[in-house]
Amino acid sequence: MFSRTIRSASKTPLALQSIAVRHFSSLDLIPDEFSGPSVKTEKVPGPKGLAASADVGIFQDPRTHVVIPNYEESKGNYLVDADGNVLLDVFAQISSIGLGYNVPALLELAKTDEFAKAAMNRPALGSFPPVQWAEWLRTGLLTVQPKGLDQLITTLCGSSANETAFKCSFMAYRQRERGGPDVPFTKEEMDSCMDNHSPGAPQLSVLSFKSGFHGRLFGSLSATRSKAIHKVDIPAFDWPAAPFPELKYPLNENVKENEAEEKRCLEEYEKILVESKSTRPVAAVIIEPILSEGGDRHASNEYFRQLRLIAKKHGAYFIVDEVQTGVGATGTFWAHEKWGLQEGEEPDFVTFSKKMQAAGVFHKKDTRPNAPYRNYNTWMGDPIRALQAREMIRLIKQHDLVRHTASTGSSLAESFKSVFGSSAASGKVMNFRGEGDGTYLAWDMATPQLRDAFVGKMRVNGVQIGGCGEQTVRLRPMLTFGEKHAEILVGTTEKVLKEL
Amino acid sequence: MFSRTIRSASKTPLALQSIAVRHFSSLDLIPDEFSGPSVKTEKVPGPKGLAASADVGIFQDPRTHVVIPNYEESKGNYLVDADGNVLLDVFAQISSIGLGYNVPALLELAKTDEFAKAAMNRPALGSFPPVQWAEWLRTGLLTVQPKGLDQLITTLCGSSANETAFKCSFMAYRQRERGGPDVPFTKEEMDSCMDNHSPGAPQLSVLSFKSGFHGRLFGSLSATRSKAIHKVDIPAFDWPAAPFPELKYPLNENVKENEAEEKRCLEEYEKILVESKSTRPVAAVIIEPILSEGGDRHASNEYFRQLRLIAKKHGAYFIVDEVQTGVGATGTFWAHEKWGLQEGEEPDFVTFSKKMQAAGVFHKKDTRPNAPYRNYNTWMGDPIRALQAREMIRLIKQHDLVRHTASTGSSLAESFKSVFGSSAASGKVMNFRGEGDGTYLAWDMATPQLRDAFVGKMRVNGVQIGGCGEQTVRLRPMLTFGEKHAEILVGTTEKVLKEL
Repeated sequence: MFSRTIRSASKTPLALQSIAVRHFSSLDLIPDEFSGPSVKTEKVPGPKGLAASADVGIFQDPRTHVVIPNYEESKGNYLVDADGNVLLDVFAQISSIGLGYNVPALLELAKTDEFAKAAMNRPALGSFPPVQWAEWLRTGLLTVQPKGLDQLITTLCGSSANETAFKCSFMAYRQRERGGPDVPFTKEEMDSCMDNHSPGAPQLSVLSFKSGFHGRLFGSLSATRSKAIHKVDIPAFDWPAAPFPELKYPLNENVKENEAEEKRCLEEYEKILVESKSTRPVAAVIIEPILSEGGDRHASNEYFRQLRLIAKKHGAYFIVDEVQTGVGATGTFWAHEKWGLQEGEEPDFVTFSKKMQAAGVFHKKDTRPNAPYRNYNTWMGDPIRALQAREMIRLIKQHDLVRHTASTGSSLAESFKSVFGSSAASGKVMNFRGEGDGTYLAWDMATPQLRDAFVGKMRVNGVQIGGCGEQTVRLRPMLTFGEKHAEILVGTTEKVLKEL
Repeated sequence: MFSRTIRSASKTPLALQSIAVRHFSSLDLIPDEFSGPSVKTEKVPGPKGLAASADVGIFQDPRTHVVIPNYEESKGNYLVDADGNVLLDVFAQISSIGLGYNVPALLELAKTDEFAKAAMNRPALGSFPPVQWAEWLRTGLLTVQPKGLDQLITTLCGSSANETAFKCSFMAYRQRERGGPDVPFTKEEMDSCMDNHSPGAPQLSVLSFKSGFHGRLFGSLSATRSKAIHKVDIPAFDWPAAPFPELKYPLNENVKENEAEEKRCLEEYEKILVESKSTRPVAAVIIEPILSEGGDRHASNEYFRQLRLIAKKHGAYFIVDEVQTGVGATGTFWAHEKWGLQEGEEPDFVTFSKKMQAAGVFHKKDTRPNAPYRNYNTWMGDPIRALQAREMIRLIKQHDLVRHTASTGSSLAESFKSVFGSSAASGKVMNFRGEGDGTYLAWDMATPQLRDAFVGKMRVNGVQIGGCGEQTVRLRPMLTFGEKHAEILVGTTEKVLKEL
């Protein structure tokens, strides 16, 4: 247990506020983590990283390479790169490492016979599930099922989880129109779907939100509205997008304006739901609890409750995309828990991937397709990722990591506010947000260029941090991120802001 | 080495023809395989399997369950189920187990530090590739790159491999229309794509073939034309499908009719390519070398060569979907090798998954997107599956398993022809096909009901065999399937046919 309280802003340049004793010790999970970052090369990647990247470049596009890690040497919250640089990693493989690198308990799992055999005897889960399949899920993924959603379809990634939810929605929507699960398909439906024409391939749509991100396959990309470079040149379904509120910060100084903005967006959203009924009825609405790739955009719990109720009113299924927000980083296991939805008003689908390592869709039994093989593919997930998720969930519970993250996030937010209120940040940082959402914090920089410069300078100062949206910096540390890492992160942020 | 030759049809009821000494010993790879199937329960699944299936049924659709395996006890070509039944498995998890269950060399790999660390430190490969990434692919997947295709994008499954090829095709097609990689996107393109409208989201299409199967995500499902139950109620892109030849068997008795049928289909195909230019130009053509889910439908090498040339003539990229046909089962590593395409006329894309365990797209450098992040996602594949593929490829080469499969397939085809020419099969079996394509053999049963009855009876007689299309039986054994397994398979087939 680390019980050391961190000095208040007045006593240290790191500006961390004192916080209560934690229920968690990173030492238990990661016994010999580095004591801090160390950067040996002038730039990151250094010469060895650049050479490795060029080597990949012979057969794969290397232009998106950021760091070339040596994963075998990485540990906990620290990523070691090819040149031996040690970076505090608060981006965590685009928010997809839950507990840290080389967590001994997870490496132990990987060395078990059970894991090795599951890895090398990969089943077609839909038809040949392992005899332990129910047990693996019941003692793992199903223990974190969102309230009211006791059905689980596993998939391989977040995009396919979302598309699975879309498909279930379309099937359930048409079943309702048809008059129930026992009403057979018409010959016209069966014939026309083979030509990709209606009524068999119906003119239905998924409504998403501007700046939302739901993946980059053809269905999910049609719902994605993050950046043009993600979408240009790719055919898309003619599906609608509603505006998402553009809140003003700080929230407590803009209460009325923000309420009006949310009201405006809800009205526009309902208008689209109504108007689409005569063209491409909306079978499902998909929303992230925090629009993440789109720039960490938040809205109030009341806004989300209204979204859900209005979807229901107009007969659209409601999909909550927790691919990035799920698994504890926001201070609750699922971010949408905070909305306070009433019983019976839970989402119809909650999708997950990334930090869970396993991917899939939680849903309700009424959206099981009426016939077998309608929602089916060869693998339908991967047992080893279900085993990994089970062990991670066990560790998260054992070490109380969600509460830890909520608490770390609160003090971290206070520290950042102190730095961002100082002259170092003046005119450079704005719209700090995510308070109350664990370590899921973000802020904007004055320009996209300044954001990119900030992220680059953080890296050579030993911190791997990520951007999103046009000019946002987002924090996505692991759940084992604690006070000692927070000190380094805030201190380095302050230093780099002064240099910019 | 097993050098025992199998007796000719006249000497054994199993009707296997004598064949040459093999270059392969299953004993090396799978030292203590079962000597044959054994079924203890009256039905398969038995009571324990049914109980396990019902247990899954609480939270997942169990209606597609066929067998509930005990993977830990399975070995080589034999699947052990929850009730202790031992089945010869010639379906291999829908054609996705390459070498067998619990192959010691693969379990050894799974227990290495390298594998365990790769499993538990899953990278965002596009931005943070492991320092060993180039080496892992260069010594593995890239050693089996199809001729002329030296670029490789890894993905997580076959559907996403195909959709990646679609996206690359659309981007390259629009780039060509635009005038090259350096011509910038227009403001109108960047704006309209965010609304899913043209010109940014272009009205382009992928041409596929009737009975083709390319996956079940929204883009791949729009190209899939296997069965209505796969497609009904799901919105689809208005993309065209060309007819695929319906060949008559035996081939040598229907040469002229089949040539005419292929000519007819090629003409119809070209007509669609031409006519679509004024509506939704075809940016890419996708084809399986053998239409597998659609019923193991074959065509001549000349037909495929013409397909490729006609696509090129009309400016469409050519995608060969080897998700099911790839990795040796057809007697060549890639099924399209047999087509004899000239240098410079290779496919633009070859996709793979299933038996490779890793999934992805081989392509040429001219279809790399012109800007970074256009073809990107969080994981972009999985290093452990690349490591598994590398070891499997090494074993396939070391044991000469592709040649072994070609040879096993030839003798197996002779044996089946002998059985199917006998009274046992009369009026029940027709259109035996796949000769010359390794163990990738198939036949039709007189009716869909008879096919289902056959498959069910084979299972209780100890053979897990699969169907495809409306009334087809398909063989998809592993690459270690050899003479001793062939004896059992053919003998059981003969027995079951007599009982039907």
